[in-house]
Amino acid sequence: MSLRPLEPSLVPPEEIAPRLALLQQRLQSLDLDAALILQNADLYYFTGTVQDGVLLVPAEAPPLFFVRRSVSRAQEEARLAEVIPYRVYHEIPRLAEERGWRRLNRLGLELDVLPVALFQRLQKAFPAAEMADLSMEIRLLRSRKSPWEVGAIRAAATISARMVARAATAAREGMSEVELAAEVEAEARRAGHQGLVRFRRFNQESFYGHLLAGPHSAVPAFLDSPTGGRGPYPAVGHGASFRAIRRGEPILFDLVGACHGYYADMTRTLVLGEPPADVLRAYAAVRAIWEVARNALRPGVPAGAVFAAATAAAGDLGYAEAFMRSGEGRLGYVGHGIGLEIDEIPSLARGFETPLEEGMVLAVEPKLSLAEIGVIGLEDTFLVTAGGAEALTEVSRDLTVLHP
Amino acid sequence: MSLRPLEPSLVPPEEIAPRLALLQQRLQSLDLDAALILQNADLYYFTGTVQDGVLLVPAEAPPLFFVRRSVSRAQEEARLAEVIPYRVYHEIPRLAEERGWRRLNRLGLELDVLPVALFQRLQKAFPAAEMADLSMEIRLLRSRKSPWEVGAIRAAATISARMVARAATAAREGMSEVELAAEVEAEARRAGHQGLVRFRRFNQESFYGHLLAGPHSAVPAFLDSPTGGRGPYPAVGHGASFRAIRRGEPILFDLVGACHGYYADMTRTLVLGEPPADVLRAYAAVRAIWEVARNALRPGVPAGAVFAAATAAAGDLGYAEAFMRSGEGRLGYVGHGIGLEIDEIPSLARGFETPLEEGMVLAVEPKLSLAEIGVIGLEDTFLVTAGGAEALTEVSRDLTVLHP
Repeated sequence: MSLRPLEPSLVPPEEIAPRLALLQQRLQSLDLDAALILQNADLYYFTGTVQDGVLLVPAEAPPLFFVRRSVSRAQEEARLAEVIPYRVYHEIPRLAEERGWRRLNRLGLELDVLPVALFQRLQKAFPAAEMADLSMEIRLLRSRKSPWEVGAIRAAATISARMVARAATAAREGMSEVELAAEVEAEARRAGHQGLVRFRRFNQESFYGHLLAGPHSAVPAFLDSPTGGRGPYPAVGHGASFRAIRRGEPILFDLVGACHGYYADMTRTLVLGEPPADVLRAYAAVRAIWEVARNALRPGVPAGAVFAAATAAAGDLGYAEAFMRSGEGRLGYVGHGIGLEIDEIPSLARGFETPLEEGMVLAVEPKLSLAEIGVIGLEDTFLVTAGGAEALTEVSRDLTVLHP
Repeated sequence: MSLRPLEPSLVPPEEIAPRLALLQQRLQSLDLDAALILQNADLYYFTGTVQDGVLLVPAEAPPLFFVRRSVSRAQEEARLAEVIPYRVYHEIPRLAEERGWRRLNRLGLELDVLPVALFQRLQKAFPAAEMADLSMEIRLLRSRKSPWEVGAIRAAATISARMVARAATAAREGMSEVELAAEVEAEARRAGHQGLVRFRRFNQESFYGHLLAGPHSAVPAFLDSPTGGRGPYPAVGHGASFRAIRRGEPILFDLVGACHGYYADMTRTLVLGEPPADVLRAYAAVRAIWEVARNALRPGVPAGAVFAAATAAAGDLGYAEAFMRSGEGRLGYVGHGIGLEIDEIPSLARGFETPLEEGMVLAVEPKLSLAEIGVIGLEDTFLVTAGGAEALTEVSRDLTVLHP
């Protein structure tokens, strides 16, 4: 079955089964009795729904899904887990025991995302249990994508293609970044974009991504990203602004396609009118760095080695200073895992020694931050295969020169 | 100075000063040495920026703002707090001590939103400190809006007005909910909508709000809201879907206007062609319940009493069963505080005894969920004044009958 935008689909049970089996393997080897999973992206991954509940995955028994709301939606959408209505956390141990599950002394939880107050309520509900952080295990598990998941990311990439095509036809001199974004966002929705974009890290948030022009793209921001932008208001603090787009300046399109919960991250560069020579030169360099990074993306290669290779290439091309700057300082990465969240692991970052594996999906985004010009970048979402990196985002990688 | 959409503006220092003073009063009466504030909405409230940092507010000394990124943005945007660059939490106690601040034994934090793993890193950085939950204090402080904040919400309400006007001109039979949403969202962005919509509660998330038609609006979902909707994909789980809008069915417009970080929540009902008699009857009842709720919204009234009054009115009108249903069960509220987050306090909910105060801003949203018809609702965002409730969302409250 191939996934397409505009065609909502339940996660197949044969997709969920191996995910649960791998999680249970990890629980057993960590000597944990069960996992408690609550966060939307993780819930969707292990059940097929984001309806409000607590998924209990015992190390050696079928999962139980305690659902507050909507019970009927959870029954319809959740796969392979028995749906059990509940109201407060305190009921869960008793409800689990009624189903024959008593041993809940060592529990693994998503401590990287669970708020303290909520965690404390869970501790009260399981007063005898020791609670360990399972978040790295879950993130690692999720980093290897199944063919079905790759299909969802390919579907998201078709939306990215529609979005960048719309940017090219809609861009006009004097239009603000936000006005151009409005056209692209409407096209995204018509193409089946889900709207919502999820990050895992605290306080990280984004609205579609970044559509920025000229020097404005190099304005630094709090987001863990090589582009910032002033954003519409200080309360948002990054992204498109009300600044007018000018002729000759690079328009950085770094927006995500999204459907079935999955994201495709892609950056393209457009220019209204003839691009200045320094933009052309920088763009050629970015393409060369992109090529080096893509070639480095092979199973067995440590994630950090991709960053090292790209950094060396940027240096050789005379862009050591400009490469992966946040505006204020150098960022230590050139890409990131992507799937149900934008900021998945592995990070293609300095010091990240995790070897790449077949099935991992990563966004590779070499970017150069040039004073008075802005950020010039190229980004694609790749699947790591035995034969190397396969691009899931399929749109011409030429600099797009527009003459409206 | 009056706030308008499309005109980004820094928070005035005279706006921040009383907020900090009230926070310090609370710290003193709780016998806490300082507050540590990290979450975006709270950071913006107490500093004027969302750049990545930790705001240390001593109970009796000026605040220190430890910033990771962007330092230059924070220096530009943050008010009344000294900006101090840092890299890791461990440096904060020493950097604070260098500035003469040693007594950090009892700290108040946002334990309702801080993830456990992040909190544990803070505990390691302040090993001797006792850490208390300050989140209710902060939320209560934020519930009383200044005239400047009310101005931001009024500005957001002008965007809501543009959005509903666009919905009325763009709606066509056979168009999907998402296609209509695309038109409204693009208009919102052109009008200066900030895009991003923030919730405080874990796992609560939304993309603009809900634009739903007919029976679909009553599809239950995990969101703490009287409307659900199937959403575009199970991974999103609520909101507009790809279902086509039909003649005669109510189109529920429940989308938020947003600028300067603030939200205006408003619901209107539109129908393509002549509305059936039961829709007209239900709409008249909703207006009557809305009137009762609005009249109850006065300083000194317990928040829960507004819910009780609205519930009684719904019963008198013969809609006891339909009132505030989530599709599966009855919701115990008829409205909620709103400001920098959609789900602020007080909740106009059963059991919420907090008395309303002048300056509080609340969205009041009586809704009736009718089988085979859908959700019929009316919602406005109100300021509580000495003289009663003043609507900040100013658009005709008639049922909008469209004849395209």
